[in-house]
Amino acid sequence: MPEEEARRESLSLVERSRIAFLGTVDELGYPHIKGMFKARSSGIGEVWFSTNTSSERVGHICALSKTCVYFVDMENIAGLMLVGETEATRSEEARRMIWEEGDERYYPLGIDDPDFTVLHFRAHEGNFYHKLRKCSFAVDIRKKEG
Amino acid sequence: MPEEEARRESLSLVERSRIAFLGTVDELGYPHIKGMFKARSSGIGEVWFSTNTSSERVGHICALSKTCVYFVDMENIAGLMLVGETEATRSEEARRMIWEEGDERYYPLGIDDPDFTVLHFRAHEGNFYHKLRKCSFAVDIRKKEG
Repeated sequence: MPEEEARRESLSLVERSRIAFLGTVDELGYPHIKGMFKARSSGIGEVWFSTNTSSERVGHICALSKTCVYFVDMENIAGLMLVGETEATRSEEARRMIWEEGDERYYPLGIDDPDFTVLHFRAHEGNFYHKLRKCSFAVDIRKKEG
Repeated sequence: MPEEEARRESLSLVERSRIAFLGTVDELGYPHIKGMFKARSSGIGEVWFSTNTSSERVGHICALSKTCVYFVDMENIAGLMLVGETEATRSEEARRMIWEEGDERYYPLGIDDPDFTVLHFRAHEGNFYHKLRKCSFAVDIRKKEG
């Protein structure tokens, strides 16, 4: 598949997905996967999630930032895997950026809830497939793609 | 969530899922995720997939058997993550067990296609969630659960 087409289809998949799958590695070296609501994305290469500060994932990410984010369109047999680094942050800027009305369901104390942490993923590599066609490409988040 | 309920719901999710997400770790320590058709499962803890012998995943698994398999029901906000070991095998027994009519689409030379490899995952731990309830439990594949 031509890279330009893969990048265009990847951006469309990221933008239309409500859910993404975050891959982390635990302290014993086992991969873990968790389906999460995408809080926000920018281009192909940056994705933000909210999570509980106390969650296992935050522990994994603080120990090892190597992560991946996977988007899938099961009906069209298309998938995008992004490999990169995730930072867990409680900065006020990050929390304000992704907070949405209704998030009190998860964080009863609101935007300042100490259990509210932001995960900020930055890709350096993408791998897109659609049916039996595929394409790998570099991702540079400094260039806004798409 | 009571463990008995989590095991029952996990088994139902595994059995009704056509697609599962396989997590591997690459040579640089990054997790990778790939959505794959489930070829077969047994109880909660054993899952088989077919893959291309030449695929990156087979390389990862031969180097490191630590893997996870994730099942998801997006409509009901339920997910099961199984952590365990995957073996890549081309044994005739394994190939015969999962071969299905129509697999020639992927392996044009049929069941003996050298590019047809079987991935056999065995879990030792499960983590089930449904909405905001969750439960972790040990998986013993010698006991057929459910």
